[in-house]
Amino acid sequence: MGLNVAQKIIKSHLVKGEMIPGKEIAIRIDRTLTQDSTGTMAYLQFETLGIDKVKTKRSVAYIDHNILQSGPENADDHLYIQTVAKKHGIYFSRPGNGICHQVNLERFGVPGDTLLGSDSHTPTGGGIGMLAIGAGGLDVAVAMGGKEYYINMPRVFKVNLKGRLNSWVSAKDIILEMLKRLTVKGGVGRIFEYTGEGVKTLSVPERATITNMGAELGATTSIFPSDDVVHEFLKAQGREKDFSYIQPDEDALYDDEMEIDLSLLEPMVACPHSPDKVVSVSELEGVRVNQVCIGSCTNSSYMDMMKVANILKGKIVDENVSLTISPGSRQVLTMLSKNGSLALMIEAGARILESACGPCIGMGQSPATNAVSIRTFNRNFEGRSGTKSAKIYLASPEIAAASALTGYITDPRKLGTPLEIEMPSKFLIDDNMIIKSESAQKKVRVVRGPNIKSFPKAKPLVDIVEGKALTKVGDNITTDHIMPSNSKLLPYRSNIPYLSDYCLVPCDEDFPKKAKENSGGFIIAGDNYGQGSSREHAALVPLYLGIKAVFAKSFARIHRENLINNGILPLVFENPKDYESIEIMDELKMENMLRQVENNIIVVKNKTKDEKYNMLFDVTLRQRNMIKYGGLLNLVKKDTE
Amino acid sequence: MGLNVAQKIIKSHLVKGEMIPGKEIAIRIDRTLTQDSTGTMAYLQFETLGIDKVKTKRSVAYIDHNILQSGPENADDHLYIQTVAKKHGIYFSRPGNGICHQVNLERFGVPGDTLLGSDSHTPTGGGIGMLAIGAGGLDVAVAMGGKEYYINMPRVFKVNLKGRLNSWVSAKDIILEMLKRLTVKGGVGRIFEYTGEGVKTLSVPERATITNMGAELGATTSIFPSDDVVHEFLKAQGREKDFSYIQPDEDALYDDEMEIDLSLLEPMVACPHSPDKVVSVSELEGVRVNQVCIGSCTNSSYMDMMKVANILKGKIVDENVSLTISPGSRQVLTMLSKNGSLALMIEAGARILESACGPCIGMGQSPATNAVSIRTFNRNFEGRSGTKSAKIYLASPEIAAASALTGYITDPRKLGTPLEIEMPSKFLIDDNMIIKSESAQKKVRVVRGPNIKSFPKAKPLVDIVEGKALTKVGDNITTDHIMPSNSKLLPYRSNIPYLSDYCLVPCDEDFPKKAKENSGGFIIAGDNYGQGSSREHAALVPLYLGIKAVFAKSFARIHRENLINNGILPLVFENPKDYESIEIMDELKMENMLRQVENNIIVVKNKTKDEKYNMLFDVTLRQRNMIKYGGLLNLVKKDTE
Repeated sequence: MGLNVAQKIIKSHLVKGEMIPGKEIAIRIDRTLTQDSTGTMAYLQFETLGIDKVKTKRSVAYIDHNILQSGPENADDHLYIQTVAKKHGIYFSRPGNGICHQVNLERFGVPGDTLLGSDSHTPTGGGIGMLAIGAGGLDVAVAMGGKEYYINMPRVFKVNLKGRLNSWVSAKDIILEMLKRLTVKGGVGRIFEYTGEGVKTLSVPERATITNMGAELGATTSIFPSDDVVHEFLKAQGREKDFSYIQPDEDALYDDEMEIDLSLLEPMVACPHSPDKVVSVSELEGVRVNQVCIGSCTNSSYMDMMKVANILKGKIVDENVSLTISPGSRQVLTMLSKNGSLALMIEAGARILESACGPCIGMGQSPATNAVSIRTFNRNFEGRSGTKSAKIYLASPEIAAASALTGYITDPRKLGTPLEIEMPSKFLIDDNMIIKSESAQKKVRVVRGPNIKSFPKAKPLVDIVEGKALTKVGDNITTDHIMPSNSKLLPYRSNIPYLSDYCLVPCDEDFPKKAKENSGGFIIAGDNYGQGSSREHAALVPLYLGIKAVFAKSFARIHRENLINNGILPLVFENPKDYESIEIMDELKMENMLRQVENNIIVVKNKTKDEKYNMLFDVTLRQRNMIKYGGLLNLVKKDTE
Repeated sequence: MGLNVAQKIIKSHLVKGEMIPGKEIAIRIDRTLTQDSTGTMAYLQFETLGIDKVKTKRSVAYIDHNILQSGPENADDHLYIQTVAKKHGIYFSRPGNGICHQVNLERFGVPGDTLLGSDSHTPTGGGIGMLAIGAGGLDVAVAMGGKEYYINMPRVFKVNLKGRLNSWVSAKDIILEMLKRLTVKGGVGRIFEYTGEGVKTLSVPERATITNMGAELGATTSIFPSDDVVHEFLKAQGREKDFSYIQPDEDALYDDEMEIDLSLLEPMVACPHSPDKVVSVSELEGVRVNQVCIGSCTNSSYMDMMKVANILKGKIVDENVSLTISPGSRQVLTMLSKNGSLALMIEAGARILESACGPCIGMGQSPATNAVSIRTFNRNFEGRSGTKSAKIYLASPEIAAASALTGYITDPRKLGTPLEIEMPSKFLIDDNMIIKSESAQKKVRVVRGPNIKSFPKAKPLVDIVEGKALTKVGDNITTDHIMPSNSKLLPYRSNIPYLSDYCLVPCDEDFPKKAKENSGGFIIAGDNYGQGSSREHAALVPLYLGIKAVFAKSFARIHRENLINNGILPLVFENPKDYESIEIMDELKMENMLRQVENNIIVVKNKTKDEKYNMLFDVTLRQRNMIKYGGLLNLVKKDTE
């Protein structure tokens, strides 16, 4: 039976399990990447493994998130990552060198390899036929230690691309079409594999836009085949040796299938506040625009920037629009500065920001109150921009640039015939801002600034687990509720004790205080607890506060895994009505846990109410072991002994 | 009797008084500038004057301080300033267009004119023979209303420049030599006027570096003559019509005099934490450097940037140094991007920041804990960078660039023969990012974001002034103590109620609470109360909190004026021992104030202690009127009636 691209890569990296959708498998990880907002924690965790040199083919630490640096915390984090990377044979991409996903695509991605990254947009690498998956920092730390990565085998979803995009319709519109059809939940447990005649009409940066924003579908990852287009791209990056063809077998089977006729697509826009609220640009024409931001890991390639430069050329940004442009990497920025395109942008009135995530993660350029901002980014959740009342629209660079000139949402098709942009046959290659440590350098002193605190370590399970129900929250609590993240808290990602004062505060202002006064306890939650990002801090901070279990009606998948990774019991009410019975400050107790942990049901006593509840504990053997031994790090250490 | 340049300009603008050093004079203001951190308050104050169009020859509102925008506050402020400027015929320089002082020099400065700016580095304009003075926002608001500016006639200090600078010695070293000789207090009550053969060896940007950083001497302003060099500069800016010669008469007299032999200077560095801790660069060679920041209103001209580009060309920043470069204006940035110099900087590993104040005001790029940072800026006060433990050195762009390459403080003379940089005969002129409102546009709706609160208004004096001694502080309390300013509080400069919770908190954590609970009261202080910046918020916020008088052993001059401008009594203990007698929460009372205010001594009763104190109230008639009528705005309104 033939294999598709995803299956081929998984098969060649399979360490444990069978490739049956939904079943747990373990795969070998060739490469890792981290960024600085998740990286400090990942490297602190890696250090506890006691390994001299990373065991991957290549691990790269990028600095691209916290580069505004309003206080010493960010620079301290960068220095920590720089020194810990040098000590352990990890490449270090210096601040200013660009966004991790863009640089990784340009300089390090290899078709057919596996990449695990502590950033949810790691699937960008799928644009060159790499199996690239986003994960928590702890998973990445363990992968750097040479351990396999566990995942439930995803269903592979074939996306058959037909035809060719019309002028002014772009890769962004393909992924917006996917989001329109499938919604932000449509990719859960799936890999999207793009095939068909349309694929070869798309350049690598276009493919990367699609795989990048596949994260918004909730997908495990997205992937394109490695073909002649990838070959040309890698040649132009001076990396022909990294190329190999990876195509689906002719008789490859897929678990699901859909088709998109590229020639039928038109320019689209995702409306506030979700990437799947997609409409045609024509429906929004005339909406006044206050800000336009071009860049982010989704749309900051050389090709994207050249399109923008050509639209802006000789024109001037509308008087009421602030236009920012963040080229994705130093390679892109240097090329633009050498070929005159950067000058065109500046002359048109663009504010050129550093090559980094910037406004996409709310790091700067928060719009005015109630403002409309069009962004080429991947997410437009309420408040993510730093301005809760702002209305953020997601669109292609073409729409963004056209709208910046007119001052209202504009269909780029009105601009006439687009200038054809040539893919460079040779990119400007200069890795001077990457510090290449090939071997471990034991003598390097790792510099830990005062804001870098050690992370909380889970402890092995004890026989009696008891405490108070510290808080009771409703349905659909996100990781943003559990561990808020904004420009004021992001600098403290290396400081769990500091962050702990903000844990669950949007739901229950007194939660941190209650947890501290009672030396921990339990969280009671409704349905879909922990939805949203893969933020590991939403587990680490409760661990620090002494949370021993979360009792919920149901959990979001990744957060549940993060809880288990950190030794916190994620228990599901067998009878959802029991949720109603528990009141805040009730005394709960689980006895005989060393025996109960082997079961799929764990009995909890409510001492205050004199009641008993059956809690479901439906996990894999490996997850059960993590709870027993105290999380993933302890399990790995135990395996290594 | 001959006049010097300063006297000539003052004489031609004199409205009231005599040009006798120390005596109050009033001068007509031709031009004003504001920046965004002081500007919102200045325009709120201007609005209360009820004037349709500004009455100056030209007023320009710049956005250069708060452009990181971590939250809606900054963008809201920008929008407020943009709309209020349009309504009242004020030019608006959009964010990204550059630093106020650099742009003003390039596009608006006129020799022989007077300029009042709500920024302490306004004297930059002295580089082209303009009388340019920094002042509080309220003074600028009143000047925009066409009212004269009051000042005590400064002593004019002749600085005779001899000879010519050697290679690698720069204008920065001239002003550092001044600071070394005269200290940060050496300029109080003085105008520095540069003369002598050495003047013509200095380009306009070099002169502007010197007049800019003359602010660090505590000077009222600094000025160069307007000569052929200025003529060439204005021609190259397409502004020949703005030129006129302004030279001192041959028999001009000065109040003081000094000489600097330029040929004897060497590259110098100001050490932490004061601009006057100046040593030769050779004394510091070998000090490890972690960060280098090039830019700021002191050293961000085209010439400065070209020097830097040539030093960096073909080299790469040391592995342990983060190098940032902020070109001073869009004109500079565009020229660098067109002539390839920007590419040279990027290739050398520089991080290019927006054309703005940036790291100089602690807005981003805070160094790591304990880090050494060399900056081409004008101030290196402890903590100003955002990192209290950082060690900030001030130096020329040459030293900064050379040190970025080696990783330690480096004497640029080691770099061999410097490349000669030609002053352009024609600058790239493009005012597209300046919105030129020539007339009042009554229909414009002024947009006030929710963070923009109206400012507190002083009230006319009442006959009985009483309250509690809310706090008692020691000597040398700075405006940073009274109203802290950092990257977290800067966005709230338009929100006095918010800022009030931080007033005097570094000295007395409970002060805001006590002031609010007691509906205001009094501040008891030691010597030199209110030293430091000209920050008007250090008076506005106490006014908001209901502070009616400050009783001190002595006051810093500008803060005392700000208090009077806002109707707060600045009273000085006749007998400094009385300071000891007053205790916190003592009840104080001043009776018959409508009569007492006419005297030079005001009697204060301490009801709690049953004591009386004589307080000195030595002010001009105009200042007395401000106290009577309730501050400058009320006085101006009264005059206008």
